[in-house]
Amino acid sequence: MQLTDTAWAARPYGEVVDLAEQDGSVLVVPVGSLEQHGHHLPTATDTLLADAVAHEGATRTDAPVLVTPPVWTGLSPHHMPFGGTVSLEREDLATLLEGVADAALENDFDALLFLNGHGGNAALVESVRASVGADHPQAEVSSLTYFALAEGFADEIRDSGVGGAGHGGEFETSLMLHLHPDLVDMDRAAGTAMDEHYDLARQDLFVGGPLAVYREFTEYSESGAIGDPTLATAEKGTELFDRLSDELAGLYGAIHEHNRE
Amino acid sequence: MQLTDTAWAARPYGEVVDLAEQDGSVLVVPVGSLEQHGHHLPTATDTLLADAVAHEGATRTDAPVLVTPPVWTGLSPHHMPFGGTVSLEREDLATLLEGVADAALENDFDALLFLNGHGGNAALVESVRASVGADHPQAEVSSLTYFALAEGFADEIRDSGVGGAGHGGEFETSLMLHLHPDLVDMDRAAGTAMDEHYDLARQDLFVGGPLAVYREFTEYSESGAIGDPTLATAEKGTELFDRLSDELAGLYGAIHEHNRE
Amino acid sequence: MQLTDTAWAARPYGEVVDLAEQDGSVLVVPVGSLEQHGHHLPTATDTLLADAVAHEGATRTDAPVLVTPPVWTGLSPHHMPFGGTVSLEREDLATLLEGVADAALENDFDALLFLNGHGGNAALVESVRASVGADHPQAEVSSLTYFALAEGFADEIRDSGVGGAGHGGEFETSLMLHLHPDLVDMDRAAGTAMDEHYDLARQDLFVGGPLAVYREFTEYSESGAIGDPTLATAEKGTELFDRLSDELAGLYGAIHEHNRE
Amino acid sequence: MQLTDTAWAARPYGEVVDLAEQDGSVLVVPVGSLEQHGHHLPTATDTLLADAVAHEGATRTDAPVLVTPPVWTGLSPHHMPFGGTVSLEREDLATLLEGVADAALENDFDALLFLNGHGGNAALVESVRASVGADHPQAEVSSLTYFALAEGFADEIRDSGVGGAGHGGEFETSLMLHLHPDLVDMDRAAGTAMDEHYDLARQDLFVGGPLAVYREFTEYSESGAIGDPTLATAEKGTELFDRLSDELAGLYGAIHEHNRE
Amino acid sequence: MQLTDTAWAARPYGEVVDLAEQDGSVLVVPVGSLEQHGHHLPTATDTLLADAVAHEGATRTDAPVLVTPPVWTGLSPHHMPFGGTVSLEREDLATLLEGVADAALENDFDALLFLNGHGGNAALVESVRASVGADHPQAEVSSLTYFALAEGFADEIRDSGVGGAGHGGEFETSLMLHLHPDLVDMDRAAGTAMDEHYDLARQDLFVGGPLAVYREFTEYSESGAIGDPTLATAEKGTELFDRLSDELAGLYGAIHEHNRE
Amino acid sequence: MQLTDTAWAARPYGEVVDLAEQDGSVLVVPVGSLEQHGHHLPTATDTLLADAVAHEGATRTDAPVLVTPPVWTGLSPHHMPFGGTVSLEREDLATLLEGVADAALENDFDALLFLNGHGGNAALVESVRASVGADHPQAEVSSLTYFALAEGFADEIRDSGVGGAGHGGEFETSLMLHLHPDLVDMDRAAGTAMDEHYDLARQDLFVGGPLAVYREFTEYSESGAIGDPTLATAEKGTELFDRLSDELAGLYGAIHEHNRE
Repeated sequence: MQLTDTAWAARPYGEVVDLAEQDGSVLVVPVGSLEQHGHHLPTATDTLLADAVAHEGATRTDAPVLVTPPVWTGLSPHHMPFGGTVSLEREDLATLLEGVADAALENDFDALLFLNGHGGNAALVESVRASVGADHPQAEVSSLTYFALAEGFADEIRDSGVGGAGHGGEFETSLMLHLHPDLVDMDRAAGTAMDEHYDLARQDLFVGGPLAVYREFTEYSESGAIGDPTLATAEKGTELFDRLSDELAGLYGAIHEHNRE
Repeated sequence: MQLTDTAWAARPYGEVVDLAEQDGSVLVVPVGSLEQHGHHLPTATDTLLADAVAHEGATRTDAPVLVTPPVWTGLSPHHMPFGGTVSLEREDLATLLEGVADAALENDFDALLFLNGHGGNAALVESVRASVGADHPQAEVSSLTYFALAEGFADEIRDSGVGGAGHGGEFETSLMLHLHPDLVDMDRAAGTAMDEHYDLARQDLFVGGPLAVYREFTEYSESGAIGDPTLATAEKGTELFDRLSDELAGLYGAIHEHNRE
Repeated sequence: MQLTDTAWAARPYGEVVDLAEQDGSVLVVPVGSLEQHGHHLPTATDTLLADAVAHEGATRTDAPVLVTPPVWTGLSPHHMPFGGTVSLEREDLATLLEGVADAALENDFDALLFLNGHGGNAALVESVRASVGADHPQAEVSSLTYFALAEGFADEIRDSGVGGAGHGGEFETSLMLHLHPDLVDMDRAAGTAMDEHYDLARQDLFVGGPLAVYREFTEYSESGAIGDPTLATAEKGTELFDRLSDELAGLYGAIHEHNRE
Repeated sequence: MQLTDTAWAARPYGEVVDLAEQDGSVLVVPVGSLEQHGHHLPTATDTLLADAVAHEGATRTDAPVLVTPPVWTGLSPHHMPFGGTVSLEREDLATLLEGVADAALENDFDALLFLNGHGGNAALVESVRASVGADHPQAEVSSLTYFALAEGFADEIRDSGVGGAGHGGEFETSLMLHLHPDLVDMDRAAGTAMDEHYDLARQDLFVGGPLAVYREFTEYSESGAIGDPTLATAEKGTELFDRLSDELAGLYGAIHEHNRE
Repeated sequence: MQLTDTAWAARPYGEVVDLAEQDGSVLVVPVGSLEQHGHHLPTATDTLLADAVAHEGATRTDAPVLVTPPVWTGLSPHHMPFGGTVSLEREDLATLLEGVADAALENDFDALLFLNGHGGNAALVESVRASVGADHPQAEVSSLTYFALAEGFADEIRDSGVGGAGHGGEFETSLMLHLHPDLVDMDRAAGTAMDEHYDLARQDLFVGGPLAVYREFTEYSESGAIGDPTLATAEKGTELFDRLSDELAGLYGAIHEHNRE
Repeated sequence: MQLTDTAWAARPYGEVVDLAEQDGSVLVVPVGSLEQHGHHLPTATDTLLADAVAHEGATRTDAPVLVTPPVWTGLSPHHMPFGGTVSLEREDLATLLEGVADAALENDFDALLFLNGHGGNAALVESVRASVGADHPQAEVSSLTYFALAEGFADEIRDSGVGGAGHGGEFETSLMLHLHPDLVDMDRAAGTAMDEHYDLARQDLFVGGPLAVYREFTEYSESGAIGDPTLATAEKGTELFDRLSDELAGLYGAIHEHNRE
């Protein structure tokens, strides 16, 4: 929960109301998780990353954007066997997100974006976008998993092949080395390449087909991490974060423009 | 609800039990909708297509596959303003799908595939796949929207450009001309090209980015159809159905093989 | 799911809207089950019968009547031990029926009839009729279990005594021999006379007192069928179906007349 | 809530446990309502009658029978427009009844009977009987609306014709004159004969067909009462109560016998 | 469920409506429990006490006050191991109380007071007060656990020290000896002094700090009672009841005055 | 969300598991709100304070204590009219807290403490403590609103009289001046003394009777703050925070000791 100028949490209520009433105002709700990320990353990794990029994007645009505290209770049943993980039931997370949106949209925001940071949340968050959107026709409601913003440029930065940029892999570890180096223990960094046998299924954060298969992560990895975190560097993290933030700032601006009267 | 050999509905209970107990057995649950599809297609289009391809795929494989009746109550809040549409609340559809799966999996199926036919259902069905999978570790649970099987070959068949193969467009209309020509009224076929202003959002059944935006279809189309149904022909439908069914049969086989002891 | 003229599913949305707007329009929602019916009948028997009579009744009246696809997910906890059965939780079926009605009644139907085909659903469907009715005062909402329409004439046709016309017995088997002879395996037809020890409880589809007792069907029958299916014939089925359809057409007409402005 | 020997409420917990552990023990849960009953009867009429007959039946049998306090929150949406009525949502009453049963059946009762006193509850209570029964296979769970016990003899006592023994009519008023004469104001007794236009629908507490139609009682009656309360007498009430109690005592005995080991 | 003049249950609906429409009208909903109270008190003790003081308070004020039947299904998971206890799930009790309030407040009461009699209900009832209050801005909604009214004077009457006036202890037993002497078995009265090791936690009905700890009562007491019931007398009960009723009558009057137009 | 050593969020999963397995381990779940706190305090005040004291207490004890991220979605319907407030429905917050506890307690913590920071949450959090406690008998579950720890010493520090230490008043503002001076705008500090007309109701954070009354804060205060924030100083905040943290550390130690094997 950041306490910068782009944070609802850090502002008195009157300033929230004023920002919401600006033409084309955008509210961002980061959604993360508290779950195992291998032995080298903290459990809040997805929450921290979604939250950080949400705010950094907001500082890089002139559009009126406000960010709520992150929802840190994600869907992680597939990580529960490792321990150290807090996962809600599917419907309870949906209800929470809808409740946050229902209350927040009593202020006069013109758009709401759920910015998700955890793959296991993605489908649920997208489906909540539709229910919130149907209930609040006065606001444009959308959802996005932030790392998809890197689909166009990740290959320029990553060294791992397909399967190396998974859960707690090169991509997420690099970002954490940039943002929270003190919370990363590279000595314990170890992952497993995902070995997905269905061609139609997802192979990586950035590569995958339309078939969604449920599997516990204990099937994939002993440490809990997927991919190759040993290839991560702070430099890659710095570049990824910079480009992700620019992409997101661009999207904020586009949403703002599209929702001006 | 088909009553062929691949249909649970058409069999006495003992035969269902027997099939489920075969090694590597696969249960398929088609999920469709009852919603406006323009003036030229019947409201059950998505249900009919998902159901038809589910069964045809099953007839083209030796794997033990059984298909439940289709769930015809989808998520279509964005179509409700047109009328003639039955849409459930997000959570109520999720509960229904989970209830069907919970009961069905008391039989000894080794895998369950939700085969979705309606874009508006896709995220919800995918999230239900996770909750069902977490609750039933003895079965491999997956989900797929059937038309994504055509991503690799749709361009070989379609004549429309990006935006032409939308809701009730060239693709769905061709399939219906093949399967239910008596239910298609080509004289009334009319659609509107989707004019999506966010680069990051979906443009078509087959083309799209990661941003999901909620919008009522009245924003897009007067008739309710998106894309260009006038380009549809029964011949295209025949080819599409044939290739979709082959793809699906292949997936059934792969699931069967992967879940044998 | 029939695709005839009386089917919502088979029509474009505009035709649904038009029919609903006719004065005294009637919407019928068939409710069935997917459950064991002995070794000689398919699991969808109740769904097929409720759906068939719902449509045939509609073709025999001039009243504007439309039939939704059948709800095939019933309440069958008492059949689950046999396998081959999909039963929802009580409340989940109620929510589904209410959801279908809520969406359907956004069209301008003047009356809604839940036409039930499964004894185990009867009380629940009747209670849902009240909640839907209370929520939609603009439409007259009613419920009926279709085989009760035969109470007045079943004795003229059946050969079995009290207890012979139970679940999968003479009555249902005859109807299936008429409608779906290919799905009936008379060689495997076997039932057990219901031996109800409480005088106040139900003895048969057509005979019974006010006491409702919950029992699993494994207490009653080895095959799963109750009554005597061996007495069933297609001729009886033809006559039953004819008279049931006439009765129902009469009811449709009465509802139509009563709800004209 | 009676505080006699047959009342759970009046006993220390150890005695409840002991009774439940007797062979063939029966628990009775009266279910009533708090709703308008015309100008001459108190709102708790249905609760008082179900509770009274439940206890009186228990005193007339040697079987081990215990009665919980009555559930006084029924389903009465059709009475709400009159005022003075407390009606729960359908599902909330179901959840309450299931909750009472779930907790009560942690004691070792062999059978549970929901004894309903309000027509508007009947279908819901019967459907709850099934869910409770399915969840508690160790106990036989049944349901009954008490006035149905009079179907066999009501005609011997009543003076009104069909339609005269409705809600707050001759039957209920007579029972109240017997049990709570101080709560009945015969000077204000007035009802309206029910004028049911569907032959297939219910005409009376004791006469009726299988069609259930939802209607607000303001359609039927200005006072809120249906039938003819002016024909009620304490003498009729005494006889009705006596015979109802005997019938119920007989049923308690039969349930007790049937559920002995 | 009392049937005196202050009881909704005992009145025809028109009188309920009339009282609610008086200026500054107050509705009281007693909330109790059905749970073990040691070997010497009946299970309905909390329900009986809350109900009795609710009505007696109402008879001692001129303010227009009406009392619903008591809700006897409380939260008693900590008593379930003793048996003889009916406890709802937390949320189900909340839903019930909200349902009662929602329906009751369709009448024109100006204030609603939940009068609780069971410590285990207190926090839940207080939280329901807030949700009901938020949903019904036209009425002032409050909650109170009746024995807290004795905090100012209990020490003048009780002989036990801290810990002696617990569940089924000196206080509740004295009140029951006054109100229902036939339901108290002083020969079996036995309790255990509560031995609370956290200074910050509750020590007694009347003494306690802000820390709330969940514990099953089997940790505290063999009989189920806490405190010293052997010190109870009818005389103490008479005085307690008299002073509690006066306090409550004063509160009713204050609520009435505060909510007059 | 702090990222110090006492934070679950900042640790890899293995360390969470290890700490939980220590004898007498304690998990703390801070619960706050996002709501108006006058014009001088940020909306996250309650969340920030509960979170800060939870962690500071943990650093002051040797007991094994871990703190989850704070739940920032509280119950604030009474603040919604001001804007800038996110309030969940009562039941949705309860479900969220239960969900967090259910998942967290799959690790081997011996005790769980909900540490609440918002008065409007207090009753709900206390009731959730009971449901979580009943569901998890292996852990001691308790709840506490942190400012109640100051009841014994607040008078030594505060300058305001009764009513001055309310929502956003002298107490909370002083703590914020100590912890987050950059987020406090003393130029805009203004409050209103609470003018509570019921003697039995709460007057202040530290003074109050047992009657709980629901009122929107617009009834009390124009700015949204209650009490006198102008008396707040950083020095008072420093002392309050120090003593609160010591008290809480003492409680953590006591819980730890009490739950060692």
